[in-house]
Amino acid sequence: MGDPAGIGPEIILKACSAPETGEICNPVVVGEQWVLEEANRSVGAELTLRPITRIAEARFEPGILNVLNLGVLEKAPLEYGKVKAAYGHAAFEAIKKNIQLAMAGEIDATVTAPIHKEALNLAGHQFAGHTEIYAQFTGSGKYAMMLAEENFRIVHVSTHVSLRQACDLVKKERILEAIELAHHACRQLGIGSPRIGVAGLNPHASDGGLFGYEEAQEIIPAVEEATSKGYLAEGPLPPDTLYPKAAGGYYDCCVAMYHDQGHIPFKVLGFSWDNQAGKMKKVKGVNITLGLPIIRVSVDHGTAMEIAGLNAASPEAMTLSLNYAVRFCQQRKTVA
Amino acid sequence: MGDPAGIGPEIILKACSAPETGEICNPVVVGEQWVLEEANRSVGAELTLRPITRIAEARFEPGILNVLNLGVLEKAPLEYGKVKAAYGHAAFEAIKKNIQLAMAGEIDATVTAPIHKEALNLAGHQFAGHTEIYAQFTGSGKYAMMLAEENFRIVHVSTHVSLRQACDLVKKERILEAIELAHHACRQLGIGSPRIGVAGLNPHASDGGLFGYEEAQEIIPAVEEATSKGYLAEGPLPPDTLYPKAAGGYYDCCVAMYHDQGHIPFKVLGFSWDNQAGKMKKVKGVNITLGLPIIRVSVDHGTAMEIAGLNAASPEAMTLSLNYAVRFCQQRKTVA
Repeated sequence: MGDPAGIGPEIILKACSAPETGEICNPVVVGEQWVLEEANRSVGAELTLRPITRIAEARFEPGILNVLNLGVLEKAPLEYGKVKAAYGHAAFEAIKKNIQLAMAGEIDATVTAPIHKEALNLAGHQFAGHTEIYAQFTGSGKYAMMLAEENFRIVHVSTHVSLRQACDLVKKERILEAIELAHHACRQLGIGSPRIGVAGLNPHASDGGLFGYEEAQEIIPAVEEATSKGYLAEGPLPPDTLYPKAAGGYYDCCVAMYHDQGHIPFKVLGFSWDNQAGKMKKVKGVNITLGLPIIRVSVDHGTAMEIAGLNAASPEAMTLSLNYAVRFCQQRKTVA
Repeated sequence: MGDPAGIGPEIILKACSAPETGEICNPVVVGEQWVLEEANRSVGAELTLRPITRIAEARFEPGILNVLNLGVLEKAPLEYGKVKAAYGHAAFEAIKKNIQLAMAGEIDATVTAPIHKEALNLAGHQFAGHTEIYAQFTGSGKYAMMLAEENFRIVHVSTHVSLRQACDLVKKERILEAIELAHHACRQLGIGSPRIGVAGLNPHASDGGLFGYEEAQEIIPAVEEATSKGYLAEGPLPPDTLYPKAAGGYYDCCVAMYHDQGHIPFKVLGFSWDNQAGKMKKVKGVNITLGLPIIRVSVDHGTAMEIAGLNAASPEAMTLSLNYAVRFCQQRKTVA
């Protein structure tokens, strides 16, 4: 469900009321029935929300959306845009339940809506975000964030650390791991021989060592080992030409050396600012946690508190997330 | 002229044979007559190249292109795509002459075509690129690189240094300088009250200090001082949302904390990879050196050695560079 005060409930309702969604999957929303009812009214969706207490009770029919109602948030007028511990806690419980259901095999994949980190922390849940919650509750030590649009994909060697610390984390082992995770994710998406472009850390990938040593000491050895293991990895490539080339289809996935190296090109291409309206008009892109025992796909935007409750949010990223989750499931079933 | 073995001569000939170019400026090419004659033949331009030895000899008529012929490169079959000391030297001499002419007031502005750094260094000229040559021969201590497309502009706090060193260069004074240079450049381009978005260094601009201290210690004080001086500066902003917002027109110029933070969004938007043809099909964007006593605009792409001499290069960036140079001149004249 995401944070009740953000746009999560709204984009879920919008995405799930599209008939195409019911054609590709059987969605169950994990969260608070009454919060979702409010969103349902606000967006004017024609859906009937059916509260259930376990997945076995779900019945999938047109016009019906099953809600696994957790009942952890007391009913009260919803304060859109407000950062509250109670909201952070409700969002956290929904994530936890979602993970448990997937770990138990009751559901095939999980898709998440945006949460508010401050609300989460106010509620006493000290996590940087979804990814860390998933890592903890699935017991995963090795994982990486992949950003994906249609065919533009990026896996990160590190994410929420300072840029100086990110430089320290540019290590052969981590890079190799990111290449392997990128390769397997692409394979799961049905790409036979994924082509992986590995970025340099420094400008011009250090121009042969002129500025920076990480290419020579860490990235080249990682790419060489990946190649010797049979992965189609290339690099280190100058970061400012790798991403335009990948966006044009030359690589199936990029490996970014730090958060912004991947997030900047991704959002510049996937987001589109409407200067008249003063808001983002397009927020295309999903965020996939690789390396987990379960499937997790998320929209790649925040709670957008400033427009919550106004029926102004675009469900594009949620729809794309559902599609990506289904692609991962299908491939897993084909392989199995 | 740029490096004789690259696409420089070709894009100059293409841009200068467009009638629109003669309507906005009186171009003189500084370089080697015979190299330009070869490019002229190769692109099938209908131009007559008139060799001159000083600017005073130039006559501007349709169908005529004046070439200030330096005669430093012996005539021989041109080896396209080859890195040679002699080519690097010829390119260097053309730049030096161009700077001298502008410093002497014989020309209004300079526009440069791509050079090859290795060729330059082979010839004994130890410079990282054009910018450093300009800084030295104009005696400039404070300068910054601006990337510009139509209305998307970025000024860099540092450029060709390692990412670790770039972190060290995130200092209040440098940031303030970049804001001031950005402001004045926008003013020179005719923007009355330029709005400047200043990026953070760390992901999410450190999320209030969670990862990284440079925002609190250096960037915020710089933005505050800039604001108190009357500049419309905002920041530090999360880098992955600043650039999409600026591309959508919200800011007139961004201040990037390091080379790739600015170059990645700029090239992802301005370049376009043609996967069928295996080359960039669009390379829009100019590179402006701010803080010099003279005007210098350059294409923002390289020598593209692999397609040199094949009549396959797009003159888009050269045409845009000429336009930008003219805009700077016009405004200077209006102000004067």
